[in-house]
Amino acid sequence: LNKVFADLPVTIFEAMSQAARDNAAINLGQGFPDDPGPEDIRRAAAEASLNGYNQYPSMMGLPELRQAIATHYGHWHGLKLDPMSEVMVTSGGTEALTSAILAVVQPGDEVVCFQPVYDSYLPIIRQAGGIPRLVRLEPPHWRLNEDMLKSVFNSKTKAVLFNNPLNPSAVVYPREDLELLARYCQEFDVIAICDEVWEHVTFDEHEHIPLITIPGMRERTIKVGSAGKIFSLTGWKIGFVCAAPPLLRVAAKVHQFLTFTTAPNLQAAVAYGLGKSDDYFLSMRKDLTRSRDRLTKGLESLGFPVLKSQGTYFLTVDLSPLGLNESDTEFCWRIVKEYKVAAIPVSAFYEQDPVTSVVRFCFAKKDETLDTALERLSDAV
Amino acid sequence: LNKVFADLPVTIFEAMSQAARDNAAINLGQGFPDDPGPEDIRRAAAEASLNGYNQYPSMMGLPELRQAIATHYGHWHGLKLDPMSEVMVTSGGTEALTSAILAVVQPGDEVVCFQPVYDSYLPIIRQAGGIPRLVRLEPPHWRLNEDMLKSVFNSKTKAVLFNNPLNPSAVVYPREDLELLARYCQEFDVIAICDEVWEHVTFDEHEHIPLITIPGMRERTIKVGSAGKIFSLTGWKIGFVCAAPPLLRVAAKVHQFLTFTTAPNLQAAVAYGLGKSDDYFLSMRKDLTRSRDRLTKGLESLGFPVLKSQGTYFLTVDLSPLGLNESDTEFCWRIVKEYKVAAIPVSAFYEQDPVTSVVRFCFAKKDETLDTALERLSDAV
Ligand SMILES: CSCCC(=O)C(=O)O
Ligand SMILES: CSCCC(=O)C(=O)O
Repeated sequence: LNKVFADLPVTIFEAMSQAARDNAAINLGQGFPDDPGPEDIRRAAAEASLNGYNQYPSMMGLPELRQAIATHYGHWHGLKLDPMSEVMVTSGGTEALTSAILAVVQPGDEVVCFQPVYDSYLPIIRQAGGIPRLVRLEPPHWRLNEDMLKSVFNSKTKAVLFNNPLNPSAVVYPREDLELLARYCQEFDVIAICDEVWEHVTFDEHEHIPLITIPGMRERTIKVGSAGKIFSLTGWKIGFVCAAPPLLRVAAKVHQFLTFTTAPNLQAAVAYGLGKSDDYFLSMRKDLTRSRDRLTKGLESLGFPVLKSQGTYFLTVDLSPLGLNESDTEFCWRIVKEYKVAAIPVSAFYEQDPVTSVVRFCFAKKDETLDTALERLSDAV
Repeated sequence: LNKVFADLPVTIFEAMSQAARDNAAINLGQGFPDDPGPEDIRRAAAEASLNGYNQYPSMMGLPELRQAIATHYGHWHGLKLDPMSEVMVTSGGTEALTSAILAVVQPGDEVVCFQPVYDSYLPIIRQAGGIPRLVRLEPPHWRLNEDMLKSVFNSKTKAVLFNNPLNPSAVVYPREDLELLARYCQEFDVIAICDEVWEHVTFDEHEHIPLITIPGMRERTIKVGSAGKIFSLTGWKIGFVCAAPPLLRVAAKVHQFLTFTTAPNLQAAVAYGLGKSDDYFLSMRKDLTRSRDRLTKGLESLGFPVLKSQGTYFLTVDLSPLGLNESDTEFCWRIVKEYKVAAIPVSAFYEQDPVTSVVRFCFAKKDETLDTALERLSDAV
C-alpha cells in the first residue's frame, strides 16, 4: 500500500478526542466549541434542507456563496475578488489546502513549511512528490526572521505554506513578518498557500492581515478560509479557496476529483451567515476573548506559565519552568488519564527537532467546562 | 503548475450542466433527479441541524451511520462488516474513490480500468504515479471477456477499478463477469476498487452483486457507495468506503488529509434513511423503472435506437443507425443549443479509441420534464 500514507499515525486531534471519550475527560484538545453554533445559521441550513436545493450544485460552489465570500473579503480587507473566477467552495479547509497543494506542487519541487506545522501539509506535499523544507519556529514569540527564510528559499522553491493566525501557537503575525515573507516569495518566484482559517478569531490589538493583500502577492497567493472556523460550526466542513484565475483554475481541477462539490443546503446557510453585520464577528471575538482570559487566569493561578494567545481557539502553556521531567506528549497522555482533561502536545506539530515543552488547550468552551477542567487540573502541577 | 491537473478539461457533467443553464435547456445530462429528494430524510437533516450535533464528528464518520451501513449491507447482501474497522464515511463517492486509489497505488503500479471510465479515475491514478491499463468495452452489451483481462493483467498490476452498475452504459454485470474478474484479481494478487454507487438503482431482473461478496474477494476489495445516489440527494456528498481492516486503515489515512470528516447533521439523516424498510428501495426502483420506460418509449417513437437500461439513472441511445454524420459530442452540443435538451456524449468516458456513436440521457426526472424534452427532440432525428 502507499508508503506516503500507510505508516502515518492517526491525526493527534482524533487520537486525543478518542482518548477523551475513553477516559470521560473534558476535551480541551481538538479545536471545537462545546456549544452548538449560531442558531440562525443552523436554522438557515434546516430551511434549505427542507425547502432549498439538495441536488448537485455547481462544482465551484453556489453562486450566492461565492458572491458572499467575495463581498466579505472586500468589506473586511478591501480585497477585490471576482466571485466567478477567483472563489471556489470546498468540503472544508482541509480539502481547500489539499486542492491548493496538489495544484501547485510537482515531483522535485521544494515547499517551505513552518514548524509547528499542521499535520495535513507534509503528507500531501509528499504525495505530490514535493520536498518539504522546514523552518523551525520557537516559543515564546514564534516569529519569522530573515535568516530562517534565507536558509530554505532557493531556485527550487515552488511554494510556501503559511498558517496565520498560527495553530497551535496562537500567534497573529504582524505586517513586518508578512512583508518579509512576501519579499522572499517575490524574489524566488514562489506561490504562497495561506491557511488563514483562523482569520476571524483574533484578540486585543491583533488584527489578521491576509498575505494576499501585501503588495506583490495578489497574483501568487492561494488563500484558504473555513466557514467551520468563522462560525464555530466545525462539523460542516465548508472551506473556501480564493486566488487569481490562473491558480484557481488548476485548484478547481483537483477539487473536481477530490470531492467534486459540497452540500448546497449547508452552503446556502453559510452564504446567509456571511451576510451578518460586523457586530456578529466582533461579538464572537469578545466572547472568545472572555473565554481565553478565563482559562488563562485559571491556569496561571494553578502555576502554569501561559503564553498569551493572540488568536485561534487555543492558548499554550510552557511546561519547562515547572521542572516536570516529562515531555509535552507524556504530560498530555498523563493528564487525560489521571486528571480527565485532554490537551494537545505541540511537539506533534514538529517532524524534526520538536519543541517538547509546550501544550495547547482549547478555550472555545462554556465557562462551566473551563472551570471544571481547571478544578481537575488543580493537582497536576 | 501540476501537469496532471493543469490541462484537464472541466468535467463533462459540469460543462454540460453549464451549457444547459446557458441555453435554458432541459438538463438530461448530469445525473441528478429534478425532484427534491425524500422529504423525511431532508426533515431528519433539518432536525439534526437544529438540535443535533454540528461540530467535528469522528473522522471515520458517525458511529450510528457506520453501524447503519454495516447493517444495510448485511441485510441486502449477507455481507458481514465490522462497523468500526471496516466502514468509513467520506464526503461523497468521489472522495471515497480518491481515498481508495491514493491508498493503494504507488509510482509504477499498473491499474486496470474499463472504458467507458468515470472521469475522476485516471487523473487520480496518475497523480499517484500509477499507470492506467485500459480495457475497451463496447455497445451494445458492454460485457467483459477473458481476452480483455488476459491482455492487461500482469505481475505489475496492483489494482483494478470496476464500476458496476456501469455509468454511462447502464449495465448491471451478471455473476459470470464478476467471477471472471475475481479470478484474475486472485491469480495476479490484485486489489479491486469497486465503484458501486449505483447499487440500488437496478431494474427488471437485474440485481446488483457486490464484487466483495464473490468468493475470494472479501479481503482484496474496497467497496465504494454513495448516499447521494441511494437516496436521490446528489448534493449531499456522503459516500462510504467498506473494506477489510488492513485496506480501510490506509484509506482512512488518506481521507484524514482530503476532507478529514463530513457534516454530522447530514450523516445523521443518512443513518436514518438507511433504516428504511425494503419497500422504500423497491418503490424507488419502481418509480425509476417507470421513468426509464417513459423516456425509452418516447425516444424510440422518435426513431432513436435505445440500448435498454439495466440500472443507473441513465439510458443510452446508439446514433449509428441514424446516419447523422456527426459524432456523439457534436450531436450533444448541437441538441443543447438547437433543441434545448442536454445529454452526455459517451465518448467523453474514453481516453483512447472512443465509442463515438452513443449518447447518455438521464431519466431520473418528473414526467413533465421527460415529456417536454421528448417534444423538443421530435425534430432532432
Ligand atoms: C481537523 S481536526 C483539527 C481541528 C483543529 O484545527 C485543531 O484542533 O487544531
Ligand atoms: C459528479 S457529477 C456526475 C454525476 C454522475 O454520476 C453522472 O452524471 O454521471
